[in-house]
Amino acid sequence: MFRKQRLDAQTYTDGILAKNRVILSRAITLVESKLASDNKLAEEVINNIIPHTGNSLRIGITGVPGVGKSTFIETFGKFLTDQGKRLAVLTIDPSSQKTKGSILGDKTRMEQLANDPNAYIRPSSSGNTLGGIHSKTRETMLLCEAAGFDVIIIETVGVGQSETSVKGIVDFFLLLMLANAGDELQGIKRGIMEMADAIAINKADGDNIRGSKLARREYQNALHMFPPNSNGWIPEVLTCSAVKSEGVNEIWELITRFENDTKANGWFLKNRQSQNLSWMEETIKYHLETDFYNHPKVMDEITEIRRQVSHEEMPAITAAKRLLDLYGG
Amino acid sequence: MFRKQRLDAQTYTDGILAKNRVILSRAITLVESKLASDNKLAEEVINNIIPHTGNSLRIGITGVPGVGKSTFIETFGKFLTDQGKRLAVLTIDPSSQKTKGSILGDKTRMEQLANDPNAYIRPSSSGNTLGGIHSKTRETMLLCEAAGFDVIIIETVGVGQSETSVKGIVDFFLLLMLANAGDELQGIKRGIMEMADAIAINKADGDNIRGSKLARREYQNALHMFPPNSNGWIPEVLTCSAVKSEGVNEIWELITRFENDTKANGWFLKNRQSQNLSWMEETIKYHLETDFYNHPKVMDEITEIRRQVSHEEMPAITAAKRLLDLYGG
Repeated sequence: MFRKQRLDAQTYTDGILAKNRVILSRAITLVESKLASDNKLAEEVINNIIPHTGNSLRIGITGVPGVGKSTFIETFGKFLTDQGKRLAVLTIDPSSQKTKGSILGDKTRMEQLANDPNAYIRPSSSGNTLGGIHSKTRETMLLCEAAGFDVIIIETVGVGQSETSVKGIVDFFLLLMLANAGDELQGIKRGIMEMADAIAINKADGDNIRGSKLARREYQNALHMFPPNSNGWIPEVLTCSAVKSEGVNEIWELITRFENDTKANGWFLKNRQSQNLSWMEETIKYHLETDFYNHPKVMDEITEIRRQVSHEEMPAITAAKRLLDLYGG
Repeated sequence: MFRKQRLDAQTYTDGILAKNRVILSRAITLVESKLASDNKLAEEVINNIIPHTGNSLRIGITGVPGVGKSTFIETFGKFLTDQGKRLAVLTIDPSSQKTKGSILGDKTRMEQLANDPNAYIRPSSSGNTLGGIHSKTRETMLLCEAAGFDVIIIETVGVGQSETSVKGIVDFFLLLMLANAGDELQGIKRGIMEMADAIAINKADGDNIRGSKLARREYQNALHMFPPNSNGWIPEVLTCSAVKSEGVNEIWELITRFENDTKANGWFLKNRQSQNLSWMEETIKYHLETDFYNHPKVMDEITEIRRQVSHEEMPAITAAKRLLDLYGG
């Protein structure tokens, strides 16, 4: 397969800071690469651009298939670019991890945004995952920030492990739902609602308006029965219709209010600092565990040991010690 | 300080299997010890008793201070021992970790149970923690099972990290709440409600009955807005009055129904198997990370690196790599 030549670190850096999208895209490809030589180069680029990061608002958006995520992001994104904001959308779809066509797919499903000079859409390709999220999504986000995007949206499908990881790298987490919660809840991952800073009931149009308003009230009541977030923010529920471009303004107002409130009370910065440290710790954990579980002696024995542990033939702690001895010996 | 002599592994094993409480208590002390020689002996004991474990029903009970946990466990426990069941209660209270008096304290606050020949109360002492729970609580539970207890209750205070760990070692997780949710929610940890298999609104007596019934309906509605558990179980909400011994019967019926349902659909066994494996993996992770973060070179540099990472002067991944190099080099 034809493979584009790599540039040098300074060329990537200059290109990104000059908001050159072709170079940005090539830098993201570099960051996502698994080649050791690429990793070294990527690290250099990230080190160069890190002083220029941190200035965007990072928004996670999730919802099960059928909730209208693409249309919502298209409408919401156009709303932002119409205000002169530059927007990057990073999409993480586990189901399309192996289809090369996903890039085309994402651009097709957000056609207007894809052709908007102030928007940039990039699917996260397959690769090593760190807690379910492509381990390079965070670095991709940093590259986009250095390229001057004001808002970065990270989109996930709300059915897997990705959301916890995305929650760990964004400032605000928006959950899209539908009025007919019964069907919807079948697909959504338990625990996800407690992560949300806001819920937007989409498709609140036509015959659906009444049901959506009812669902809004029900969700709002339900959320009031739960403890507030650590930032003191009580999640809000809104309705919107992405196809009719309704309610999008209110969602942006809410997010802006969240940003102002949490910047004023210090949580915004504190959260980012703790996210940085968590990312370091998660990376360390990932490397320690990968090294451990890929050790030849551990690999030789672990299947049988796992069988014995799961059937309570061997205590978990004895098993752990035995594997640790094999690893250390 | 006077320290009792250790017995040999066979004496501990025989004593536990013979339901000798003095030896059980001494075995738990052995398991909780941090001395390397004790650890080796403890491992031998656990290995001996493991074939005799797994036969109890493991129940986690949590709720913030003031919710009436001790009174509830006292009433609920008496209800069980009256039916001829043997009950062990393991209490985990982070606030009393350092007070030697906590043993006496727990026994005082559950006076009837403490004097019941079919009940056994044991506070978890301080020590290394694994995800917030005393790392030896699981082994203590196994010792109690081998000693023939039919039901094991693990009690936590619902404000810290312990609940996630307790959820990982019990079959059923009960959350105690009060009717005036507003005050209560201030203290409870976010995420805990999504862990609960049932919520019991305690102190539903006298003037409180009406409010408790209302709260029950509100919580039940709220829980219906959330996705069901992975076992297909939809959490139920009940009311009770521990001081009046009311509603305790219904809670036990619910737990019995849960046990029957999840045993019938296979989840009960599957959950235990996956808990066993998780415990092994958590133990491995704990040892790998402890070894890493206690490495002299890592300890020398980590404070400054953490400062740089949290202030975005150094990318998290670069920091992780630097520390991993120090550790490996």
